[in-house]
Amino acid sequence: MLTNDTICAVSTAPGVGGIAVIRISGKDAVSIASCIYKPFRKNFSLTVQKPYTLSYGEINDEYGKVIDEVVVALFATPHSFTGEDIVEISCHGSLYIQQQIIALLIHNGCRSALPGEFTQRAFANGKMDLSQAEAVADLIASTSAATHRLALNQMRGGFSNELVKLRTRLLDFASLIELELDFSEEEVEFADRSRLIELAIHIESVIRKLAESFKVGNAIKNGIPTAIIGETNAGKSTLLNSLLHEDRALVSDIHGTTRDVIEDTTVLQGITFRFIDTAGIRDTQDKIESMGIELTFRKLEQAAIVLWMIDATELNENITRSAGRIIQYCKEKKLIVLLNKTDKLTRQECNEKKELVDSLVAFDHSVLCISAKNNFGIEELEQQLVAAAALPETGTNDVIVTNVRHYEALLRAQKAISRVLDGLHSDISGDFLAQDIRECMHYLGEITGQISTDEILGNIFSKFCIGK
Amino acid sequence: MLTNDTICAVSTAPGVGGIAVIRISGKDAVSIASCIYKPFRKNFSLTVQKPYTLSYGEINDEYGKVIDEVVVALFATPHSFTGEDIVEISCHGSLYIQQQIIALLIHNGCRSALPGEFTQRAFANGKMDLSQAEAVADLIASTSAATHRLALNQMRGGFSNELVKLRTRLLDFASLIELELDFSEEEVEFADRSRLIELAIHIESVIRKLAESFKVGNAIKNGIPTAIIGETNAGKSTLLNSLLHEDRALVSDIHGTTRDVIEDTTVLQGITFRFIDTAGIRDTQDKIESMGIELTFRKLEQAAIVLWMIDATELNENITRSAGRIIQYCKEKKLIVLLNKTDKLTRQECNEKKELVDSLVAFDHSVLCISAKNNFGIEELEQQLVAAAALPETGTNDVIVTNVRHYEALLRAQKAISRVLDGLHSDISGDFLAQDIRECMHYLGEITGQISTDEILGNIFSKFCIGK
Repeated sequence: MLTNDTICAVSTAPGVGGIAVIRISGKDAVSIASCIYKPFRKNFSLTVQKPYTLSYGEINDEYGKVIDEVVVALFATPHSFTGEDIVEISCHGSLYIQQQIIALLIHNGCRSALPGEFTQRAFANGKMDLSQAEAVADLIASTSAATHRLALNQMRGGFSNELVKLRTRLLDFASLIELELDFSEEEVEFADRSRLIELAIHIESVIRKLAESFKVGNAIKNGIPTAIIGETNAGKSTLLNSLLHEDRALVSDIHGTTRDVIEDTTVLQGITFRFIDTAGIRDTQDKIESMGIELTFRKLEQAAIVLWMIDATELNENITRSAGRIIQYCKEKKLIVLLNKTDKLTRQECNEKKELVDSLVAFDHSVLCISAKNNFGIEELEQQLVAAAALPETGTNDVIVTNVRHYEALLRAQKAISRVLDGLHSDISGDFLAQDIRECMHYLGEITGQISTDEILGNIFSKFCIGK
Repeated sequence: MLTNDTICAVSTAPGVGGIAVIRISGKDAVSIASCIYKPFRKNFSLTVQKPYTLSYGEINDEYGKVIDEVVVALFATPHSFTGEDIVEISCHGSLYIQQQIIALLIHNGCRSALPGEFTQRAFANGKMDLSQAEAVADLIASTSAATHRLALNQMRGGFSNELVKLRTRLLDFASLIELELDFSEEEVEFADRSRLIELAIHIESVIRKLAESFKVGNAIKNGIPTAIIGETNAGKSTLLNSLLHEDRALVSDIHGTTRDVIEDTTVLQGITFRFIDTAGIRDTQDKIESMGIELTFRKLEQAAIVLWMIDATELNENITRSAGRIIQYCKEKKLIVLLNKTDKLTRQECNEKKELVDSLVAFDHSVLCISAKNNFGIEELEQQLVAAAALPETGTNDVIVTNVRHYEALLRAQKAISRVLDGLHSDISGDFLAQDIRECMHYLGEITGQISTDEILGNIFSKFCIGK
């Protein structure tokens, strides 16, 4: 990767807006920008403009034609996002103007930035470690209070600071053990084995806690998997619509975001729920339909929470075979039974049906009387969903892993450090010990970016949007 | 309209981007922003930050929770876009963060800005006249070199400077004539009639030229109406796709804009062409189909350019009734006849078919041999389209009206000034003269915004995007 050239990109969201911001980073940022930018102030230019100030002027093309009137902000190395000189041009938000300015910058020697390249440069210049850089992408993608808090936490250091410290201590031990190997005939012991055991136990426990937090982190980041299950006419789609509706309205209240992004997930009290689509379940002899139902049961296995919808008007003591099977499958899940269409029943009937469900389901569950059509009971359901999510309270300082890459590296580091511990207890030879310590260090380093390959970096930054 | 409060909005395009900019304008902009923003620099705050400088810090909610790390830019009254104090917050471009910051600002006393309200304040504070403010919206919407140049030209003063001057001179005459009325018994003549005639002739000619330029301006802004007509199997859709394709690729090259915006228009050498959808034409006895064809002929009337597509393999000397009618309809248009599917013909056959068309069409036209399927001849067609558009060369200083509102006001002003001229020639009484002059002034003032009603302002600014 070249970091010697100067890159540019539109950093604001794609599309037409009041203003757009074009970012230029690299050692020639100021000189390239000053080729196309003329401040209105007399006897003034970008090259004399002080860092961290603004100026007002116009962008001209090579024939002197005015492209736009803009505001230009300057940031100087090393105190900038990338650590390099940065020029930010705020122009009018027309697509045409954005294209023209980018084209002019390229014409004058800039290169179009790759996805995430600004953040990658921040990493390369030591402005942040790799897990912090990854958090920038998560922060941009955050759509709920919980995902936002986790990403911000990680961007501001999070657990990687601790990993860096632990890794440095491991490095000291590894060096000492390797030194012993050089003097192997003399049977010296530079590395204090009991202190190494202490450290390994500590590291193992930190890594285990982090790896365990991934389950929560993943649920927060991708949403808590929630299945809505029930017979075809039970009202599942109506329910899903009322659950999704509020969030959609909230998001579009300020922005007008696309439906794709939030389809099938909803945010309740800062927690994201991801709804799993299931086919209606009923007893059938039809072979094809049976296969669909089998698939539904398999999908059910991913769910942490199950909303089982029952048409209350049709519920009676003759429990069907598939109902029995649903109950069977939900033993390990948080089960919320929804008696739908209760607007057609008396309160007395509702209570009887509730008791009937309670007698059928032997394990912990809850039963709610709702009417999906009339939006009755939906608020109570949302409260129940939030309670069922029961995420451990994640305070500002809590350490939670949300990234699959980190999780996998942690699992590998955990295996390596366990081997170190085993080795220490069984008094294994120093060279094996050193190898396991190095392996643990390697995986910890992969998380923080102290160890990185082009492939890892490529994978991470290609997922960024252009302009960040 | 309240201009005493402080407004805020996301000014960058809606959606997720690397960064987003939130703009706050009004007398309390700094004090409200400093409620939620804490610079990292010690013993520093927004209230001591100098205008036109940047600072780096964090946004906190009312409980001290960090929402984001941001860069804040300050602009001070009167040297800002709106003429008021402005604070611009550059935050990470997540929807969640954008919403949270807006919510915090509102919580601390900001009001959510209405569409175009920043520009409306710029107008209210005398930073620009009304036609300049309208040009800001056009500039943002510009998608081609031509629309961009016109909008930028208008934003930088355009013709409204001249109108303001002419209006002032009319005002002087109106005042003098009205003064004469006060002394009507004394038969004095304060206003020099011959100089008034001179001025009225000058104004009439300026207005007429401006009104005439609207035809060109409208074509540039909305695209030159271009119909593709022909029988159903002639290859119209394939052609439209090749004509639209290039532009779409160009636009999405940098951005990924939505298909909606550019649907059915394409930009060739900076000129926008708007394609008119027509049903296939053929001789038919079917009543419903005939109605569709009638509609096509009616739509043909809007077109300035007609692309008549003919399947060359089926063209022969027996001209059909509908072909005759097409020729009839195209007399007043720029007609380009496209002989399609010529990949199936020899060069000799192509020439014969061309000559056949030339013999059928008596007026000025051109004939091209193409193959829409193989993209053969498309480049030549594009050259022909650009030539057919034949817009007068609009230099940087040319004055062109693109706005329907301005056009209508100009027509009314023209009528009034013509009456003034007639009146002067027929030695009409001063009070009628003064009334016509005032009317002309009124309509000129409507264009520049010297005369404005809440209704006019509401109509103009409601078409803006929020955040501008």
